[in-house]
Amino acid sequence: MALLPAELIKKKRAGLEHTREELQFLVGEFVSGALPEYQMSAWLMAVYFKGMTSRETAMLTEVMLHSGRVLDFSRARSLAVDKHSTGGVGDKTSMILAPIAAAAGVTVPMIAGRGLGHTGGTLDKLEAIPGFSVSLTLDQFEKQVSSLGVSIIGQTAEICPADKKIYALRDVTATVESLPLICASIMSKKIAEGIGALVLDVKFGSGAFMKTVEQADELATKLMEIGAAHGKKVASLLTNMEQPLGRFIGNSLEIGECVAILRGDEFMGRSDFEDCRDLSLQLAGHMIWLGGLARSADEGYAKAVATLEDGSAFRKFEDICRAQGGDLSALPLPKHAHDVVAPADGFVSAIDTEQIGYAALALGAGRLKSSDTLDLTSGIEIHRKLGEEVRKGEKLYTLFVRDASFAPKIADASARVLSATTISLQKPKLAALIAKSKIN
Amino acid sequence: MALLPAELIKKKRAGLEHTREELQFLVGEFVSGALPEYQMSAWLMAVYFKGMTSRETAMLTEVMLHSGRVLDFSRARSLAVDKHSTGGVGDKTSMILAPIAAAAGVTVPMIAGRGLGHTGGTLDKLEAIPGFSVSLTLDQFEKQVSSLGVSIIGQTAEICPADKKIYALRDVTATVESLPLICASIMSKKIAEGIGALVLDVKFGSGAFMKTVEQADELATKLMEIGAAHGKKVASLLTNMEQPLGRFIGNSLEIGECVAILRGDEFMGRSDFEDCRDLSLQLAGHMIWLGGLARSADEGYAKAVATLEDGSAFRKFEDICRAQGGDLSALPLPKHAHDVVAPADGFVSAIDTEQIGYAALALGAGRLKSSDTLDLTSGIEIHRKLGEEVRKGEKLYTLFVRDASFAPKIADASARVLSATTISLQKPKLAALIAKSKIN
Repeated sequence: MALLPAELIKKKRAGLEHTREELQFLVGEFVSGALPEYQMSAWLMAVYFKGMTSRETAMLTEVMLHSGRVLDFSRARSLAVDKHSTGGVGDKTSMILAPIAAAAGVTVPMIAGRGLGHTGGTLDKLEAIPGFSVSLTLDQFEKQVSSLGVSIIGQTAEICPADKKIYALRDVTATVESLPLICASIMSKKIAEGIGALVLDVKFGSGAFMKTVEQADELATKLMEIGAAHGKKVASLLTNMEQPLGRFIGNSLEIGECVAILRGDEFMGRSDFEDCRDLSLQLAGHMIWLGGLARSADEGYAKAVATLEDGSAFRKFEDICRAQGGDLSALPLPKHAHDVVAPADGFVSAIDTEQIGYAALALGAGRLKSSDTLDLTSGIEIHRKLGEEVRKGEKLYTLFVRDASFAPKIADASARVLSATTISLQKPKLAALIAKSKIN
Repeated sequence: MALLPAELIKKKRAGLEHTREELQFLVGEFVSGALPEYQMSAWLMAVYFKGMTSRETAMLTEVMLHSGRVLDFSRARSLAVDKHSTGGVGDKTSMILAPIAAAAGVTVPMIAGRGLGHTGGTLDKLEAIPGFSVSLTLDQFEKQVSSLGVSIIGQTAEICPADKKIYALRDVTATVESLPLICASIMSKKIAEGIGALVLDVKFGSGAFMKTVEQADELATKLMEIGAAHGKKVASLLTNMEQPLGRFIGNSLEIGECVAILRGDEFMGRSDFEDCRDLSLQLAGHMIWLGGLARSADEGYAKAVATLEDGSAFRKFEDICRAQGGDLSALPLPKHAHDVVAPADGFVSAIDTEQIGYAALALGAGRLKSSDTLDLTSGIEIHRKLGEEVRKGEKLYTLFVRDASFAPKIADASARVLSATTISLQKPKLAALIAKSKIN
């Protein structure tokens, strides 16, 4: 019997579970153009209100992933493992863990995204390296993964076209914030990459989409269920985004921090990148473990540390840059700096991290809508992190912009970072960087 | 500040109340084509789930009614009053009460609808009269209302274009069944007709959209609130649709019944149309009262009866037909009849009226989708109504079709009407035709 779109919308409106055939019909007809956008958006809003069962979300993921090409790395030198982060401020671990995991022998086919809103994107950061191309064809991507063990590119039209088309519609119809739709979108793209396993960095806190660890846990569980339904091992780390990760926010600045961590040296006079270094090692350690190159996450972690210490991870990063046309030695740096100083003595006790992200965006490091263009050198240096002491007049942040014409934006961003930062007389208790890790 | 469609959808998604400006923006931009259908349908689905306040529904009504031309009968000989029915089976009161109310001096500018699903439509019934045109221009309509005091036409593109466009979208996006959207759709069209008052026939029971009297009461209350917000007197009668109204279903058959009631004589050998006659008189009595031509609904009822008895109501109906080109003497009747007889002795104790409506539809009297064409002579005669006794082998229904080629449809409709009719040994208790009446 022919399926009627309005009947399917009504079914979801009533909170009923779709069959695989129904989801295939909705997604397939939408991608082909036979199902109009107005019916898809009404259905998406019904999904927003009524949700989906785990089985249904897994089927939607499957239907979406098969809307395009599905890569296959099953004949690679080792299991293909990728990492997905739900997005944070100063979150630059991909550029560190991908070469680490690859140096340890893991196959890492990474298809990354761009920044939107207060969070940065891996592709924008890589493009701060002059010449670096994230627009390889899938054939080039597969070749590089075969030869180097790793490549990082942007989404192509061939991978999950259904996700691309559905996401564009969700963005303009207030249907982004739906857990099953978020999960299907993330997992369909990751599974289409041809991975055998996945490490999730699910962030919680003031800089994350999920404000509490419970929400992050729920999202992690749902993503892992989909992975399990598709026969993929998934490890989840629930990680703290109550403050920016590392010391720098901004595209070329973050690359500088990554290189310093990979090489074990300094960037702009500092090397205190413990949180960013450790989270990258933890995530890479899980990738090495799931990739079958360590018997535990701890052993994976030790192997990850070894790739930093013996220089193999940095050499792998140089290989990636060379293979994708990037010239690391030409990394541009901002010309203009403005210090924001502490208004009082005390300890940094809270940071509204989302506001720090928006301040970086105001300086040109991010985009509010996908058509905005970036200033790849602008950004923020964080002199005092949570729990660190500061005296009145000492630097809290340095704001970087390309040139002095950005003065009005600096004033805006200064006010924003200051109001986002709480200074207290008492030294605050610090939460762990990793609240929980679990595996399906 | 510019309004952003996605933000407005998000606001309704959160269950918040829109401002008049926001509703004006959404409806106005949608009608102009600037707001795409996919955003409107997502918003409509959010309204389905989150509803609207009374104030919001009244504002939406206002915005919709001003999307087109608003007629003005304030200088007519008397207050303009119309009736709206929520739709039933065999519901033919419009053709009876309009001439009655007009004969009693009320100004009756009636813009009516077509049948859809199991309910019939006034326009289809009038078109069973050869030559009758329901497609007057608004200027012709106004002229006829001025000269005759009454005209019955179909919706034109100039009246509430927003409703027309929104309804078409609701129909294909499973967003029809939303109380505020239903109310705004009904009231915007009625108020645009230029009425000063409105009588509502809100039906409940097995043949109505509202299955219980409580649901009908809620709908009536909401419609009356909107009327009050627009300064219109509204009287509501909650009326029983547990069985078809009158003795005939089908377009030309129903016109025959109306003429018999108006003339006080027979149609196809019968004159037992008490329920249809009385409901028409009650509704007309309320119209005469609200129109200022009686001091109470009871006095209005008495005046309505007088127009039947002195022949003025039938003459008014003949005037309407003449003015709109219809030749009553040429009313076509079906050529082919098939009797459905009682399978046992007993009393008719329950009728699934919606199924009777679908049986009439199967015979060609109705349409499932708006593009279906009708057989204007087909339909059903009801020999036994609720509480009436029948002996095995006696006629329960007669099914009428144009010619013998309809035999397969007759078999389908026979089975349907039989299974829809419960015959019991006990005589059932009968509910009142009018459960409640109220006024704002």
